[in-house]
Amino acid sequence: MVFSSRLIEEAVEAFSRLPGIGRKTALRLVLHLLKEAPDETHRLADAINRMRDEIHFCKICFNVSDAEVCSICSNPARRHDLICVVENIRDVMAIENTQQYTGVYHVLGGVISPLSGIGPDDLTIEPLVQRVAGGQVQEVIMAISPTVEGDTTLYYLSRKLSSYPVKLTTIARGIAFGGELEYADEMTLARSLTNRLPIESYLHTEALSPRPPQQSEETNELNTPER
Amino acid sequence: MVFSSRLIEEAVEAFSRLPGIGRKTALRLVLHLLKEAPDETHRLADAINRMRDEIHFCKICFNVSDAEVCSICSNPARRHDLICVVENIRDVMAIENTQQYTGVYHVLGGVISPLSGIGPDDLTIEPLVQRVAGGQVQEVIMAISPTVEGDTTLYYLSRKLSSYPVKLTTIARGIAFGGELEYADEMTLARSLTNRLPIESYLHTEALSPRPPQQSEETNELNTPER
Repeated sequence: MVFSSRLIEEAVEAFSRLPGIGRKTALRLVLHLLKEAPDETHRLADAINRMRDEIHFCKICFNVSDAEVCSICSNPARRHDLICVVENIRDVMAIENTQQYTGVYHVLGGVISPLSGIGPDDLTIEPLVQRVAGGQVQEVIMAISPTVEGDTTLYYLSRKLSSYPVKLTTIARGIAFGGELEYADEMTLARSLTNRLPIESYLHTEALSPRPPQQSEETNELNTPER
Repeated sequence: MVFSSRLIEEAVEAFSRLPGIGRKTALRLVLHLLKEAPDETHRLADAINRMRDEIHFCKICFNVSDAEVCSICSNPARRHDLICVVENIRDVMAIENTQQYTGVYHVLGGVISPLSGIGPDDLTIEPLVQRVAGGQVQEVIMAISPTVEGDTTLYYLSRKLSSYPVKLTTIARGIAFGGELEYADEMTLARSLTNRLPIESYLHTEALSPRPPQQSEETNELNTPER
């Protein structure tokens, strides 16, 4: 690409370093910003700078936070004896969106992956062990992706924590809600059969789901107005 | 989406105002920036701010520029009696990339589009008329997209410039190089037949193309090593 301006070229270059943004998309973004009011452009640049400079990582759970201790860890209404271990910040957001979890978190910052050069020391495993060693924790839920690296991390953590009087659990693997059996992979289906649930426990889970049964029925009626 | 940090939320909000970037992509970009070195993030913000604050629009052709007059308009080696009229900066880049055009440009800033509320006064039509009225211009090439709005603009410009002793041309419409006749639309094919070229003129164009015939043969040989 031939740029008539060095300033444009530098901005395109900076944008195209972001994941999933090539030089053509970067140019589109830059030309869009040139068309917008200058305030709009400065707002983006300021948000980026402030986000980078002022952000904290919670010193307890390593979640992103505006203060030294995040809003979840400093919330007295949450169960501080229940820790959910996740890979990253996005997983915290996904679980918070369910509005079902009342415990606290521990953000590992990734999973053990020798191929990418990530070992146990690159993750926040030691601080987790310290939290558990404190003796206040009753249960640690591993909410880690069921990949090879995730399972390695899960195994490593369970070994590290096995000497403490704490209950270790993992989130249930199985057929996703709304999924169809015929399209499920063998591994998932096999584990779903092995770890089958008593019907009462399934119905109990239903009642806890974010969408209460009444509302669920209403939604169904809205979706099928011909009934 | 539930954000645990107001700073993150503001950055996601700012990113998702860019075209083609939704909140999920914005979050991915923000979390990427958080992982990178702070220098990288500040480099992006600085490039955005400087691009917006220091950019000029060339006072002659309205192309983006680092100075008051752009590098094309201030280049004495280019033909200043030949003006190519384009819609936007991206079109200038596209034509410059061909390395075949030695004249100067005039960036309209869009096309006349009553539906979008863009009239002739919103474009740089008056400055173009002034340039032509100066008397130094021999030919104006309209390189405007062949859409309804583009054709309206072309017609308006040709009326405005008709009283000056200047040659008005438009870039050739026809079957794209490498295109197949059976997939061409009727309009393009019909115009290609009406405005047919003498063979010598076609061969002459070939010789001017960025890739000389010898190299083109070499490339073919590289692509088909079995020969």
